[in-house]
Amino acid sequence: MIGRLNHVAIAVPDLEAASNQYRNALGAKVGDPQDEPDHGVTVVFIELPNTKIELLYPLGDSSPIAGFLEKNPSGGIHHVCYEVDDILAARDHLRETGARVLGDGTPKIGAHGKPVLFLHPKDFNGCLVELEQV
Amino acid sequence: MIGRLNHVAIAVPDLEAASNQYRNALGAKVGDPQDEPDHGVTVVFIELPNTKIELLYPLGDSSPIAGFLEKNPSGGIHHVCYEVDDILAARDHLRETGARVLGDGTPKIGAHGKPVLFLHPKDFNGCLVELEQV
Repeated sequence: MIGRLNHVAIAVPDLEAASNQYRNALGAKVGDPQDEPDHGVTVVFIELPNTKIELLYPLGDSSPIAGFLEKNPSGGIHHVCYEVDDILAARDHLRETGARVLGDGTPKIGAHGKPVLFLHPKDFNGCLVELEQV
Repeated sequence: MIGRLNHVAIAVPDLEAASNQYRNALGAKVGDPQDEPDHGVTVVFIELPNTKIELLYPLGDSSPIAGFLEKNPSGGIHHVCYEVDDILAARDHLRETGARVLGDGTPKIGAHGKPVLFLHPKDFNGCLVELEQV
């Protein structure tokens, strides 16, 4: 069912410092910051040859990243995103196995303009999993 | 400098349950458990089309994963691994930028039989970074 690893998202306390670090210390191809007000984050994409790293920084008053950074002031890996062909079929199959889908199970349009769902981290080894239909 | 994302490592409290979940609920290609006594872990590789997920479970009395699972009983994302062409050049460049390399800076032979180093998570947004020479 799951296909490619679309990205690994890392919440960071200082977006400019983290961008410079990936650009200069790690020598990666780092994009410009993009505000995603619908998702409460500013994102910087790091293009690796086979996948992406997304640096996440809170945007606005109700960012889903703010609480994470309060608990993890240095930052931390926030989620992984796997690609699926059919997000509704994936959701239904996962629910049959007992996995909890966050929210009401209706896919939202994610930061890449594609339907996404998140799975409960307690059901996936403490790892927040995003599914993105590609 | 960094190339492909070689893998994302997830520490899990129950290797069989996690393997079954990735195999059955997420429909991924899941390998058999491999004991890595030199690294204090039992590993299950999950082959995605573009990278790997490594499920990590403690092996032996001094596993580097044991403390992580004590702090995170449900499990959690433990590290990401980036490929580099020349690990000594990468190490020297990173030190010049002020990043801390764990241990004495001598690469060890990692779970894939290749030289690896780990970078201090406090210097990398709370994210433990492994570099692997490929």
